[in-house]
Amino acid sequence: MDFGLTDEQRLLQQTAREFVSKVCPPEQAKEWDEAGVYPVELFTQMGDMGWLSLPFPESIGGADGSIVDLCVLIEQLGRASLDIAMCFAGTFIPGLTLFKWGTPEQHERYLPGMMEGRNRFAMAMSEPDVGSDVAALRTSAVDDGDHFIVNGQKAWCTGAGLPGVIMATYVRTDPTAPKHKGMSLLLIDPASPGVEIRRTPTLARHILGTNEVFLTDVRVPKENLVGPLNGAWKVMLSGLDVEKILMSAAYTGTAQSTIDEALAYSLEREAFGRPIGTFQSLAHGLADLQTEIDAARLLSFRAASMLSAGEPCTREGAMAKLKCSETYVAAARLGMQVLAGHGFSTESVMSFRWRESIVATISGGTSQIQRNAIARSMGLRSY
Amino acid sequence: MDFGLTDEQRLLQQTAREFVSKVCPPEQAKEWDEAGVYPVELFTQMGDMGWLSLPFPESIGGADGSIVDLCVLIEQLGRASLDIAMCFAGTFIPGLTLFKWGTPEQHERYLPGMMEGRNRFAMAMSEPDVGSDVAALRTSAVDDGDHFIVNGQKAWCTGAGLPGVIMATYVRTDPTAPKHKGMSLLLIDPASPGVEIRRTPTLARHILGTNEVFLTDVRVPKENLVGPLNGAWKVMLSGLDVEKILMSAAYTGTAQSTIDEALAYSLEREAFGRPIGTFQSLAHGLADLQTEIDAARLLSFRAASMLSAGEPCTREGAMAKLKCSETYVAAARLGMQVLAGHGFSTESVMSFRWRESIVATISGGTSQIQRNAIARSMGLRSY
Amino acid sequence: MDFGLTDEQRLLQQTAREFVSKVCPPEQAKEWDEAGVYPVELFTQMGDMGWLSLPFPESIGGADGSIVDLCVLIEQLGRASLDIAMCFAGTFIPGLTLFKWGTPEQHERYLPGMMEGRNRFAMAMSEPDVGSDVAALRTSAVDDGDHFIVNGQKAWCTGAGLPGVIMATYVRTDPTAPKHKGMSLLLIDPASPGVEIRRTPTLARHILGTNEVFLTDVRVPKENLVGPLNGAWKVMLSGLDVEKILMSAAYTGTAQSTIDEALAYSLEREAFGRPIGTFQSLAHGLADLQTEIDAARLLSFRAASMLSAGEPCTREGAMAKLKCSETYVAAARLGMQVLAGHGFSTESVMSFRWRESIVATISGGTSQIQRNAIARSMGLRSY
Amino acid sequence: MDFGLTDEQRLLQQTAREFVSKVCPPEQAKEWDEAGVYPVELFTQMGDMGWLSLPFPESIGGADGSIVDLCVLIEQLGRASLDIAMCFAGTFIPGLTLFKWGTPEQHERYLPGMMEGRNRFAMAMSEPDVGSDVAALRTSAVDDGDHFIVNGQKAWCTGAGLPGVIMATYVRTDPTAPKHKGMSLLLIDPASPGVEIRRTPTLARHILGTNEVFLTDVRVPKENLVGPLNGAWKVMLSGLDVEKILMSAAYTGTAQSTIDEALAYSLEREAFGRPIGTFQSLAHGLADLQTEIDAARLLSFRAASMLSAGEPCTREGAMAKLKCSETYVAAARLGMQVLAGHGFSTESVMSFRWRESIVATISGGTSQIQRNAIARSMGLRSY
Repeated sequence: MDFGLTDEQRLLQQTAREFVSKVCPPEQAKEWDEAGVYPVELFTQMGDMGWLSLPFPESIGGADGSIVDLCVLIEQLGRASLDIAMCFAGTFIPGLTLFKWGTPEQHERYLPGMMEGRNRFAMAMSEPDVGSDVAALRTSAVDDGDHFIVNGQKAWCTGAGLPGVIMATYVRTDPTAPKHKGMSLLLIDPASPGVEIRRTPTLARHILGTNEVFLTDVRVPKENLVGPLNGAWKVMLSGLDVEKILMSAAYTGTAQSTIDEALAYSLEREAFGRPIGTFQSLAHGLADLQTEIDAARLLSFRAASMLSAGEPCTREGAMAKLKCSETYVAAARLGMQVLAGHGFSTESVMSFRWRESIVATISGGTSQIQRNAIARSMGLRSY
Repeated sequence: MDFGLTDEQRLLQQTAREFVSKVCPPEQAKEWDEAGVYPVELFTQMGDMGWLSLPFPESIGGADGSIVDLCVLIEQLGRASLDIAMCFAGTFIPGLTLFKWGTPEQHERYLPGMMEGRNRFAMAMSEPDVGSDVAALRTSAVDDGDHFIVNGQKAWCTGAGLPGVIMATYVRTDPTAPKHKGMSLLLIDPASPGVEIRRTPTLARHILGTNEVFLTDVRVPKENLVGPLNGAWKVMLSGLDVEKILMSAAYTGTAQSTIDEALAYSLEREAFGRPIGTFQSLAHGLADLQTEIDAARLLSFRAASMLSAGEPCTREGAMAKLKCSETYVAAARLGMQVLAGHGFSTESVMSFRWRESIVATISGGTSQIQRNAIARSMGLRSY
Repeated sequence: MDFGLTDEQRLLQQTAREFVSKVCPPEQAKEWDEAGVYPVELFTQMGDMGWLSLPFPESIGGADGSIVDLCVLIEQLGRASLDIAMCFAGTFIPGLTLFKWGTPEQHERYLPGMMEGRNRFAMAMSEPDVGSDVAALRTSAVDDGDHFIVNGQKAWCTGAGLPGVIMATYVRTDPTAPKHKGMSLLLIDPASPGVEIRRTPTLARHILGTNEVFLTDVRVPKENLVGPLNGAWKVMLSGLDVEKILMSAAYTGTAQSTIDEALAYSLEREAFGRPIGTFQSLAHGLADLQTEIDAARLLSFRAASMLSAGEPCTREGAMAKLKCSETYVAAARLGMQVLAGHGFSTESVMSFRWRESIVATISGGTSQIQRNAIARSMGLRSY
Repeated sequence: MDFGLTDEQRLLQQTAREFVSKVCPPEQAKEWDEAGVYPVELFTQMGDMGWLSLPFPESIGGADGSIVDLCVLIEQLGRASLDIAMCFAGTFIPGLTLFKWGTPEQHERYLPGMMEGRNRFAMAMSEPDVGSDVAALRTSAVDDGDHFIVNGQKAWCTGAGLPGVIMATYVRTDPTAPKHKGMSLLLIDPASPGVEIRRTPTLARHILGTNEVFLTDVRVPKENLVGPLNGAWKVMLSGLDVEKILMSAAYTGTAQSTIDEALAYSLEREAFGRPIGTFQSLAHGLADLQTEIDAARLLSFRAASMLSAGEPCTREGAMAKLKCSETYVAAARLGMQVLAGHGFSTESVMSFRWRESIVATISGGTSQIQRNAIARSMGLRSY
């Protein structure tokens, strides 16, 4: 049993930490969020660091990094904000899916640009009436010779409106089959005729942006099919563990920076003649929270380690997602109580944590969905 | 023992409920908040309803309403938003202080305008380095014949920048006395030379607005002293129970409308073929929350009832403030989980509840300060 | 709105409080519990006080007391222990059912002895495989002319083994009807041939005792049928609100005495040179708990007040049961933490609270069942 | 990073698991507890397995086992009960202290018997008025030539009354020094004249037993001094991390077996026509709890791993103790709710978990003391 990082991982951690300090400290992340700015250079700089090719094999220009390596990096990026971490992680989640299921032609076409930070993927899965029950999706793709004709509407499509994006879109290709058996994954270029993208105003996550995507008679070449026709349920599932685990690392980073900020404030701000952090109610609250953050981080790295080793980890991934996301929300809650009025002021980074944190227990599968998955692994089918 | 409302109170409740539906439903409250608009007519309409004169004696144009009556009304206004409720309650908290401690001349000068909704008070108590330990305030008022010369800085001064406002400002008139014994309360006109008001950007409460107030050699006539010179600690304390209790009623209203919105959504939104509210994890969460809201409301009305009867209720007021504010935060937390993505979208009222709720456990005395007060009433002096 | 007691209620409260101090203080309640003793005189003394006839009409020797009066009394008895309070309340729950549904002959036969403390009822509802889903009961009563022949097994039958007890037994009289429509209520004398009673060893509640009851060809005269044949579901439902509300009052009393004991200890026990109660983590814990106890009490009295007034209060009764029982468990949890080693020693009353409290959220409908009921009242059918 | 066990550790785990199944399954542990029996053979069997010599160097008959190895073993023993795990762990905590600070003569005299399971140590640290603030102890040891004369009273002295025990007793040897600087550690034979041992009745932990020890003019040879004269504070601190970490492993085991028992029951017991575990409120409760248990276990092994590697781990040990103990209490709480009436019956193992669990957050440093330690590691000195 070994809970430490390798020397390479420590170096990666240190480098990422410095990157955040210089390129995207929390104050900067907040500023971009408030302005709704897409900092192109952030992506290219990540590309320059070699991070966007990290998990791919050396043969195609990668560095053979493990999921644990990715988590080490993502946690540090999460110190800036969840949104910043997802600029990175959100790129990989569909990127790894494409790598796993795509053809060599698709690899060649999409991965180099992604590795350089010029291109990225946007996941288009949810629909206005389809949230947790993803297999209920209704966007249709009808065979039209060498194309599919796609009609429907996607929701909560993060990053769909950014330049250089290709949308990894889950569609129904066989409306007569049982709901898990008639779905396919298509890459759709947002510039295609018939695609309309409308930004959804949200509490946070404004760098990447969340979007509704309206698809009207969109022609998608068949070469853009990723994985088997009607086999997208399996494709989707294969990416879920990765998604949960990478997101968990991001939440750990945000939770840790949230408590670090609260702690620093509690040592500086005085009331009744002493730093407020020395009052036991805050001190014990912070101690409990740091304990939970450490626990969350360990759950996250355990799952990453299992995934890196190729072991089944659906249960452990769900535990990591559940605990890390709830802990970020808890950290923002305590952080607001520590900063009090100063947190309520939007001049504080904490106000940004408050706005942003609440998405953690919602997106990528709500806490309820994670609990269902864990219960199922215990033999309890509960819905 | 009687937990029901009188017929008059039911009528007041009903009228207020309809007022909210017509004049300021949650969607409207949110719109004003997002635009940072001060809806002048909201105040004059409240005046027209006779609400702004409710608690004052008939002799000066009031209706002899009780604190319970005020709470019935405030709870309904809280259904719109905390900010809306505080447009009303925030007017009374210093208004009742002025009524209790002011001279007949002060009554005549300030109360009629307040009753008509043309004028209101803004409380100026906190300072940048002074939060929970209010007696540590440093803004100084130096005797200069028939004036005081005031210098200092106030923070978290709600509503100070609105038209028709007079600032009820706590100042230090005897810097040599022990901290609780050298304070006085002055009414300061924001238009006076030397007053500068700077809006503090905040997560919510944008109708009234929160402000920093810079006071530089401001001349305040001595006739603006409210209550005894150097005796403001007692004045302040006398208003604290009222403040806590009226705010509690507001929180109850916001919490109730939050759960009502979550419940309605949970019955309409479907997943896995049934309304999400029928899944036990949400159903039980909503059942627990409604139980806590009912409990909070009872604590609030108990304290109001005691205050109306002239009984000591510092402990009961602190319990009401603590429980009602924490319950509003809890309601927004659960509401976001029920609405999920739709709550994260700022098109939803729930997103506004999330932004606004967190101030409840902070302003007017944090939850920690309330717990200190309750503990003290149990013989536990804990800081 | 009036949260106070009447003068008569205050007197009743005071009398009951003194009764507990003299006759059954917590130390005595604990001793009886540890010895499994049934203190006959406790019941006759309650009879002598006139308490056992309190809620009945004057015409039959009662005092026309309201449910609120009963709750005032039960809360005080609960200060001794839940078991002591249930010695009283447990008598009334089936007693009031008999009064409501029984014939004049049944009244005459059973009520006088109950009022004097010589007789009491034991409720026989649950079965070994039937807990929350009470309508699934299987004990059968077959028509045999002027008798029923009863066969089956009852569980968790509190007090069934005590002298002077008659068992209010729910049985299935029509096995072909839907499960809610074939049940009846019979009074069964435990001395009848074919009745075997076996004490279930439990963590607490040892005065009344919990029992399994084996019924083999027990002949029960038809005059012992209470309420309509096959109509016991309605009979049972009519008693549920009373049961929940009286039990809630008992839990409030136990929770209050638990915190009183913890508070007293925290002021007396020193560590690091000061009373441990002055450490903020304990002080705030106690403040929060007292707030919850006050809230629970208000929920309990609100429901009692509604029931006294004949208003529907199933929802409010479920809220009271849920909150009061959970609060007793929470009080014992904090009490143990405050008393620490001294609580773990069985010489402390707190150790008895710990053993006893956990039944509160289980018996008389688990917390989950109460949440189901509340959710249903909100339009959420969740199982 | 590697979260797996070595092959040797897996074997140890498997062996221990089988040992528990055969020698001391939970039902047996409960029976011993209820009877207050000291199963001598349990200790000699542990000796025969080589477990009691596990952490000592091969040179003195040990197996050079690491703290992680001990934790693997203790967790499995904890599946039986905390008391069973502490029969083992409680032996090592002072045993390792003796090994670290004792003279070769002391090693030779005490360790062989301990390794064979014939002898064991009992820690005598607390006093009736001295709990968390251990340095405040008052038992005095006065120099009397080649002996000390010891007078005082010790409390919560686990196992002091068992055969073959030697008491590791913390005493004050310099009453004039500051409280942390005048303490020493003496080995006291309970058979010495002037030693009186009185069993403290407790809710659980009845195998080892908790005792008060009265010391009246007890003559203790100076060769029984362990570590430096007046230097016991350092000796005590050196053992605290080990103690916390070994106890954490025990709590993890008890929590895991508690949830395993609850889960099994929830799958077997039916209500409303389905296993109760399929109701989402229980299913999600169990999912959350298993997540917390996994988190607790990881915190425990992280600390063990650091201690094995000789790294400072006071903070991590306190986190492990806090989280694992609180999780055992939470597991018993949920377990009781799942088993409901069957848990309240003392025929169930769950009733034993309920009685026993509550000591976890109390002994070996309360949760409050752990939070203080964690807060201190964050720069927050809060008492």
